[in-house]
Amino acid sequence: MAKRIRLAKRVVAESDRLAARLAETFQQAGVFVANLMSSPGSGKTSLLEETARRLAPQLRMAVIEGDLATDRDAQRIRKAGIPAYQINTGGGCHLSARQILDALDRFDLAALDVLFIENVGNLICPAEFDLGERRRIVLASTPEGDDKPIKYPVAFNKADCIVLNKIDLLAATNFSRDAFLGFVRGLNPAAPLIELSCRTGEGLDAWLDYVRAERRAAASGAPRTPK
Amino acid sequence: MAKRIRLAKRVVAESDRLAARLAETFQQAGVFVANLMSSPGSGKTSLLEETARRLAPQLRMAVIEGDLATDRDAQRIRKAGIPAYQINTGGGCHLSARQILDALDRFDLAALDVLFIENVGNLICPAEFDLGERRRIVLASTPEGDDKPIKYPVAFNKADCIVLNKIDLLAATNFSRDAFLGFVRGLNPAAPLIELSCRTGEGLDAWLDYVRAERRAAASGAPRTPK
Repeated sequence: MAKRIRLAKRVVAESDRLAARLAETFQQAGVFVANLMSSPGSGKTSLLEETARRLAPQLRMAVIEGDLATDRDAQRIRKAGIPAYQINTGGGCHLSARQILDALDRFDLAALDVLFIENVGNLICPAEFDLGERRRIVLASTPEGDDKPIKYPVAFNKADCIVLNKIDLLAATNFSRDAFLGFVRGLNPAAPLIELSCRTGEGLDAWLDYVRAERRAAASGAPRTPK
Repeated sequence: MAKRIRLAKRVVAESDRLAARLAETFQQAGVFVANLMSSPGSGKTSLLEETARRLAPQLRMAVIEGDLATDRDAQRIRKAGIPAYQINTGGGCHLSARQILDALDRFDLAALDVLFIENVGNLICPAEFDLGERRRIVLASTPEGDDKPIKYPVAFNKADCIVLNKIDLLAATNFSRDAFLGFVRGLNPAAPLIELSCRTGEGLDAWLDYVRAERRAAASGAPRTPK
């Protein structure tokens, strides 16, 4: 058991070292890098599609997609008009700093304003791994139920921004907005919480404003402030 | 790296040994044990609540609940009228055979017909671990999107039964039933696929019939046939 713990500590230290290197690279390039995480099917790819369609004329964006299998998400992003690079993790339940570092060979960071990393659909493992991102965005969606924050506390506690998607389905579910807000604020008092629907477009403006503001901060060389 | 692989192999071998012990215990007791897995918020607990309410008069049931944190699910199950024991994994992304073995001290298996294990909400890690169950049930729900099977292929490939929940939300989403069925059958040609809504009750009878039939098979001493 002691051997297992020593080995695990070494793996974590290596991951943190690579994440710090990534953070430095991103800061020097002045690129806003966001790491998106959520359950499968909360709408990460849909949010990035809408962001690409609405901001691509103004901002130079790209996406790194993480999935166990298939390149469906990268295809969807490319159809929405911006470059995407697909990482398939096989069985891996999260993206690693090493995978992001390797993927950067595919992008000219200096030619980008915003780089989105869409993590593997999983509310648990991705929350444990820093990818050097400026902001960590956690998505939830109304059909998943209002109690997800307290059931997956690490993800919501470490989030820099929380997006509640599928508000168009509120009336068709037994999701309580008040309960959700209470759970979120108990774990994370200050992170922006943006409620939207990728399907209807409601609330998307607040999200786009957030992306623009973070992009300006990154471009000005402001350092990230990881939790 | 070689040391890491040797260590990982030893951990897997220990897990498989404990799972085989569990399977033997369950078979000798003649109890139908089902291991439920899905994304967070697909409706595992809702399905077990409805099952408890509708079958408790006929069958003696209990639930082992797995969550990172809180005992909310165990409370919901108890309110629905059957015993539940909550395991909190802390950061752990799946239940382990060791945890199930320890939890069995809380139950008189000989006094049960059916034991449900509700795994941690995660479509990835739980699929890698046998808990000695007779049947592995994978849930999906319509708002998650129709492509989840090919994006999380191990879970759907290894499933003994697939439940599609929230069919009441079909019209409010862009879920294609045909696409979902195609993806499922490409990975898993033969497993029963039960479409239902825990909210409206539609389709629940087919699920209850499945549970009754599996309970009869387990009681008759029929061995499990793991994939």
